[in-house]
Amino acid sequence: MSNLIDEFRNYRTRMNEKILGADNKVMKRIYSVDTLAYQQGALSTKTKEMLGLVSSMVLRCDDCIKYHLEKCHEEGLTNEEVFEIFSIANLVGGTIVIPHTRRAVEYWEALNEKEGTNTNS
Amino acid sequence: MSNLIDEFRNYRTRMNEKILGADNKVMKRIYSVDTLAYQQGALSTKTKEMLGLVSSMVLRCDDCIKYHLEKCHEEGLTNEEVFEIFSIANLVGGTIVIPHTRRAVEYWEALNEKEGTNTNS
Amino acid sequence: MSNLIDEFRNYRTRMNEKILGADNKVMKRIYSVDTLAYQQGALSTKTKEMLGLVSSMVLRCDDCIKYHLEKCHEEGLTNEEVFEIFSIANLVGGTIVIPHTRRAVEYWEALNEKEGTNTNS
Amino acid sequence: MSNLIDEFRNYRTRMNEKILGADNKVMKRIYSVDTLAYQQGALSTKTKEMLGLVSSMVLRCDDCIKYHLEKCHEEGLTNEEVFEIFSIANLVGGTIVIPHTRRAVEYWEALNEKEGTNTNS
Amino acid sequence: MSNLIDEFRNYRTRMNEKILGADNKVMKRIYSVDTLAYQQGALSTKTKEMLGLVSSMVLRCDDCIKYHLEKCHEEGLTNEEVFEIFSIANLVGGTIVIPHTRRAVEYWEALNEKEGTNTNS
Amino acid sequence: MSNLIDEFRNYRTRMNEKILGADNKVMKRIYSVDTLAYQQGALSTKTKEMLGLVSSMVLRCDDCIKYHLEKCHEEGLTNEEVFEIFSIANLVGGTIVIPHTRRAVEYWEALNEKEGTNTNS
Repeated sequence: MSNLIDEFRNYRTRMNEKILGADNKVMKRIYSVDTLAYQQGALSTKTKEMLGLVSSMVLRCDDCIKYHLEKCHEEGLTNEEVFEIFSIANLVGGTIVIPHTRRAVEYWEALNEKEGTNTNS
Repeated sequence: MSNLIDEFRNYRTRMNEKILGADNKVMKRIYSVDTLAYQQGALSTKTKEMLGLVSSMVLRCDDCIKYHLEKCHEEGLTNEEVFEIFSIANLVGGTIVIPHTRRAVEYWEALNEKEGTNTNS
Repeated sequence: MSNLIDEFRNYRTRMNEKILGADNKVMKRIYSVDTLAYQQGALSTKTKEMLGLVSSMVLRCDDCIKYHLEKCHEEGLTNEEVFEIFSIANLVGGTIVIPHTRRAVEYWEALNEKEGTNTNS
Repeated sequence: MSNLIDEFRNYRTRMNEKILGADNKVMKRIYSVDTLAYQQGALSTKTKEMLGLVSSMVLRCDDCIKYHLEKCHEEGLTNEEVFEIFSIANLVGGTIVIPHTRRAVEYWEALNEKEGTNTNS
Repeated sequence: MSNLIDEFRNYRTRMNEKILGADNKVMKRIYSVDTLAYQQGALSTKTKEMLGLVSSMVLRCDDCIKYHLEKCHEEGLTNEEVFEIFSIANLVGGTIVIPHTRRAVEYWEALNEKEGTNTNS
Repeated sequence: MSNLIDEFRNYRTRMNEKILGADNKVMKRIYSVDTLAYQQGALSTKTKEMLGLVSSMVLRCDDCIKYHLEKCHEEGLTNEEVFEIFSIANLVGGTIVIPHTRRAVEYWEALNEKEGTNTNS
C-alpha cells in the first residue's frame, strides 16, 4: 500500500523539479502562489486544505486529490471528517465522482497505515 | 442591489416547487440528500457551506454560488474569509473562474447591504 | 412564456446563418455531421434526442438543452419521460445541474403551452 | 482481455464496500438513489442505461463508461447501437472524447468475448 | 451593438477594482501573473492571445471569450483567422461550444463595427 | 522512455482502426474533419497544433496532449515555446492542470530524446 504513496511522491517531486527547472517565470509564479494560498489567514490551513480537497474531487483530478489528502492527513483530519468531504463532493459533482472517491479511499487508507490514523480525542 | 437577491430567491423557489411537484422520486431524493449533506456532523455546517461554495466556484455554477453565498452569510462568514475561499477557487480552477468571482462579489455585496456585514468580534 | 421560445429560435437562426456564412469549411462540416448524427439508424431519432438532451444537461449548456427539449417535444416525449431524463442528469452530473434543470423545466412548460402536451395514449 | 473486466469488477466491488462500510449517511443515500434511478419507469432500463453511458462519455469518466457498458451489454445492446451512442458522445463532447472511446471499444470487445455478442434477431 | 462592448468593459473594470481592492494577496498575484503570461516571450502576444481565446472557448467561459476577442482584435486578427480558432474550439470541445460561438461571433462583429475590421494587406 | 511513445502510438493506431472499421458514418466524419481542421489555412499548421495542445491541456485529456505534443514537435517547437503553452494552460485552467503538465513534460522529454531537440537557429 505505501508503494502507492512513495510512487506518487517521487514522481511528483521529480517532475515538479523539471517544471521549475525549465525557468518559465509564469509557471514558477503559479507554484509560489500555490504555496501562499494554503497558508493560515482568516481561514486556517486545515480549512483551506479541505477546500483544496473538495475542489480537486469535483474537478476529478486524482493526483490533486492525493496531494490534498496528504495535507489533510497532516492537518489531523479524521476518517469521519474526510468522508463528509467526500459526501459533499459526490453530491455536488454527481456520481461521476464515485470512481475518484474509490481511489481516494484507497489512498487515505494507505496514509492511515503509513502515518497512523487521526482521532479527535 | 437587493433586486438581485429577490429575483434569484423567487425564481429558485418557484422552479424548485415545480420540480418537486413533478413527482419524480429520484429528483425528490436528490433534494432531500442535498438538505442532509450540509447538516452539522463531524464538520460544522459553516465548514460544509464553505465546501459547497468553493465547489460551486470551481465548477463555475453562478446560481449554486449565489445559494452558497447566502448560506455562508447566514453562517457568519466575514469578507476576509469569503475572499480566501474565492482565492482558492481561482487558484485551483484557473482564471476562467474570475468572471464568476466578479458576479460572486456583486452578490456578496448585495447580501451585506441587505442583511448586514459579518464581523469577527 | 412563448417569448422565451421565439427569442431563442430567432437568435439561434440568425447567428447560425452568420457562422455558416463565414465560409469556414470545418464549421460547415461540424454542422452537417450534427444533422447526420440524430437521424434514424440502429437507434431511433427519439432515443438519440434523449441522448443529446442528457449530454447537454450534464455538460450544463442551457442553449443546447433548449434545442434538444424542442426536438424531444417534437418526438412526442411526455412530462414523465422528460423528468426521468432530468433525474439521470442530476444524479450523474450532481446538484450543479439543478439550476439548469430549473431553466429546462421553464422551457419545457413553454413548449407544452405553445405546442401542446404530449401524452402516451 | 477478460482480465480487464475482472480487475475492474473486483476493484469496484472492494472499494464500494469500503465506502458503504464507512457509515456515511449521505454516501449511502447517493448509492441508493443511483440504484433507483436506472429502474424501469416511463423509460425502460435499456434507455436509461444508454443515457448513463452517453453522460459518462461526455463527462469523460472511464470507470463510469465501463460500468454502463456492462449494463448496456446486459440490456442486449448491439455493436451498431453502442457505436451510435459513441458517435453522439464524440459529436457533443468533441474530439477529447476520442481517447475514452478507444478504451470503451476495448472494454466492449472484452465484454463481447466474455459474454457473447448481442444481435437484433 | 457597441452597447454590448461597453457594458462588458464597464462591469469588468468595476468588479475587478473591487476584487483587487479587497486586499487579498492571492487574488492580486493571480491577476499579476495573468498580465505576465500574455507578454511577448518565445511566443508572440498575438499567438498567446489566440491560445487564451481557444482555451476560453473549449472551457465555455463567455466573458473570457469576450476579453480575448478584444485582445485578438487589437493584435490584428482577421475574420478568417478568428473563424479558424472557432473551428478548432468546436472540433476539440464539441457541439456544446456552438452556443458560445454564436455569442462570440456577435461580439466579434461588434468589435469590427466599433474598431474597424482587420485585414491582411 | 521511448516505450512511453511506442505504447501510446501503437494503442492509438490499433484502436483507431477498430473505431473506423466499425463503419459508423458519424465517427468517420468526425475523424475526417479532425484531419481537415489542422491543415494550413489563414493560420499555419504550427499555430493550429499549438491551439490543439493548449485546448487539450485545459480540458485535461492526457492522450490528446500526447498527440498534440507529437505534432508540435514535428512542427519544430522549442522547449521554451512549449513551456509558454504550458504556462497559459496552467493559468487559464488552474492548478488542476499541473498533474497533466508533469506527464506532458515527461512525454516531451521522451520526444526530444527519440527525435532530437528543436532549436530556433
